Amino acid sequence: MAASPWGIDNLPYGVFSRSAGETPRVGVRYGDHVLDLAGALHDEVFATGSLNAFMARGAAAWRDTRALIRNKLGTDPSAVEPHLVPLGRVTMHLPIEVGDYVDFYCSLEHASNLGRILRPGDEPLKPNWRHLPVGYHGRAGTVVASGTPIVRPCGQRGAGVFGPSAKLDIEAELGFVVGAPTELGSRAGRFADHVFGVTLVNDWSARDIQGWEYVPLGPFLGKSFATSISPWITPLEALGAARVPGRAQDPEPLEYLRRDEPWGLDLTLEVALNGEVVSRPPYREMYWTPDQMLAHMTVNGASLRTGDLFASGTVSGSEADRRGSLMELTWNGAEPVKLSDGSVRGFLEDGDTVTITATAPGPGGGVIALGEVSGTVQPAR
Amino acid sequence: MAASPWGIDNLPYGVFSRSAGETPRVGVRYGDHVLDLAGALHDEVFATGSLNAFMARGAAAWRDTRALIRNKLGTDPSAVEPHLVPLGRVTMHLPIEVGDYVDFYCSLEHASNLGRILRPGDEPLKPNWRHLPVGYHGRAGTVVASGTPIVRPCGQRGAGVFGPSAKLDIEAELGFVVGAPTELGSRAGRFADHVFGVTLVNDWSARDIQGWEYVPLGPFLGKSFATSISPWITPLEALGAARVPGRAQDPEPLEYLRRDEPWGLDLTLEVALNGEVVSRPPYREMYWTPDQMLAHMTVNGASLRTGDLFASGTVSGSEADRRGSLMELTWNGAEPVKLSDGSVRGFLEDGDTVTITATAPGPGGGVIALGEVSGTVQPAR
Repeated sequence: MAASPWGIDNLPYGVFSRSAGETPRVGVRYGDHVLDLAGALHDEVFATGSLNAFMARGAAAWRDTRALIRNKLGTDPSAVEPHLVPLGRVTMHLPIEVGDYVDFYCSLEHASNLGRILRPGDEPLKPNWRHLPVGYHGRAGTVVASGTPIVRPCGQRGAGVFGPSAKLDIEAELGFVVGAPTELGSRAGRFADHVFGVTLVNDWSARDIQGWEYVPLGPFLGKSFATSISPWITPLEALGAARVPGRAQDPEPLEYLRRDEPWGLDLTLEVALNGEVVSRPPYREMYWTPDQMLAHMTVNGASLRTGDLFASGTVSGSEADRRGSLMELTWNGAEPVKLSDGSVRGFLEDGDTVTITATAPGPGGGVIALGEVSGTVQPAR
Repeated sequence: MAASPWGIDNLPYGVFSRSAGETPRVGVRYGDHVLDLAGALHDEVFATGSLNAFMARGAAAWRDTRALIRNKLGTDPSAVEPHLVPLGRVTMHLPIEVGDYVDFYCSLEHASNLGRILRPGDEPLKPNWRHLPVGYHGRAGTVVASGTPIVRPCGQRGAGVFGPSAKLDIEAELGFVVGAPTELGSRAGRFADHVFGVTLVNDWSARDIQGWEYVPLGPFLGKSFATSISPWITPLEALGAARVPGRAQDPEPLEYLRRDEPWGLDLTLEVALNGEVVSRPPYREMYWTPDQMLAHMTVNGASLRTGDLFASGTVSGSEADRRGSLMELTWNGAEPVKLSDGSVRGFLEDGDTVTITATAPGPGGGVIALGEVSGTVQPAR
């Protein structure tokens, strides 16, 4: 099993149920099974319906629990076997109760592309962009589990123009889940002491609604209808072999944004539209690293809660086929993506399914897979 | 007691405790007392530490409960007397578990003033402003109870400039608390079927941090360090005599923003700085009414949760002494407010206390008071 991308070096956490009536429970994915942790570890913290109570125990507990699970799986498989449930027999749920959801804008290429598309002739980046990781709060209550249908949103697309969005898009992102909180008025400490793990995020976006509403207070209804996350939260410990130094930054960031440890991550995302891969965004090319996002988000004394989610913003690489949104891949619809059935897409059509997956280097030359995030577009109501 | 602004026609809900060890409980304010509802009504929903469980029961339960309380207070005072606790003996807490927090920008005068200050020479209002209530998500996790100290935030105030905010400001607002939720993909129905009541909000703002960070995704750290709300949630039913038609709108809003019922509110706020009144913002002059905010916020199918809070944005009147922020009252510090001790304020100094109160017309020529929201500035850490 060691060579599997879902083997003992991965072990992401999720929340599952085996039947409609059952209170969802915490498990780790192991191959094609879910290990029921409440049963295997005799700990009721895993029978509470979300990861939050476990995450709130803090980083030392996260390490100990992972070591315990690895030990049991490695040395005493017969003892855990009764607690392994085939994936095909479970329903996966939203793994966390989301506190606040913050979305950043950390890809130099994404921010530059959007600037070129939306403000042609102007400097693509705003003056603050290289000085701080730009971010904003999204709607926590509409963060949904992978598989949740995405109803095409209606809204204003201009002065007096109302209707279903005609520019429904995706944003392929990496999300970071806060486990250990901070007090109001203080700053976060070390990244790994607060952040429990990562998840894939699809920040569905209605470009026409967003374009009309967003000045001067930022995106609102163009984003708030749904944000999908994968059912599996990959613990930071599983990403040790993926850690790389962050990309060079110019100008050098202020002291509070200094990188003390390498938290660049060599993850490759894969975006599939109706089963066809349309992009492979490279996370390692991101300009701002997640430790910098965390430091920035709390430098004003804003507190963190267990379950807070912050996301990278669209992951777009320097190559044209490695961009993380249709807006960029099709240059605002002008250069549609061609699918093998002969159809083309500028933006999403009703019935389209988008699935984002990712892999990272694992220990000893292996590969770690992240849980997929998927959603299908339903017609506007 | 009927003539008191805290009499039987008011009865706002809050969460209190009588000793440090006690689980906070729900009560209504009646004169200078709190009526302990778990005791008086024999209902454990009021012993759950917040208003959320009660609010989730829906509008019919809100009406029935209020009628029951009024009946008990009016007809059988001796039976409720054992459950009346003097205000001086209780500690008040954050009354709700906040789901999502959305801040709107509904005052024509406030938006125009900020446009004139920040973009002199340009058209003060952005093209979308008269077509939709502009809003954005704030940080729910840093919504705090009145009385919580406000630590002056640090942050970037320009390229390479870091330090404590030198332009710490207030925003006097009215907040609306969602009681009854909606499903993802559907729109909210009647305003009074979803909104439980109102609270006063001080949306503390660091103007220098905000000014540098806010393009293109909106305010973030300039706001997220703290938002204070009053401990008392005034139920909509107590505001019947305050309801007025909304201000005339040009152009006529789209169908989904049409006002079916009068939800303008004739509330007068009062902003006191170290005990001296510096402004009396008139809520009835607001351009966008709260029913329009609710309709807009959910027109894209975004769901509501019990405990969601949405606020009006700064309440500023057309007269210069009725503006709801120091930014406007002092015209970005150029025309400082003079206090009776001879000192002046462009923005807030450490140790300053800001208290916002409000009154509204009650039935029969009476007056309804809203709970005050107060906070004192502490030095940066």
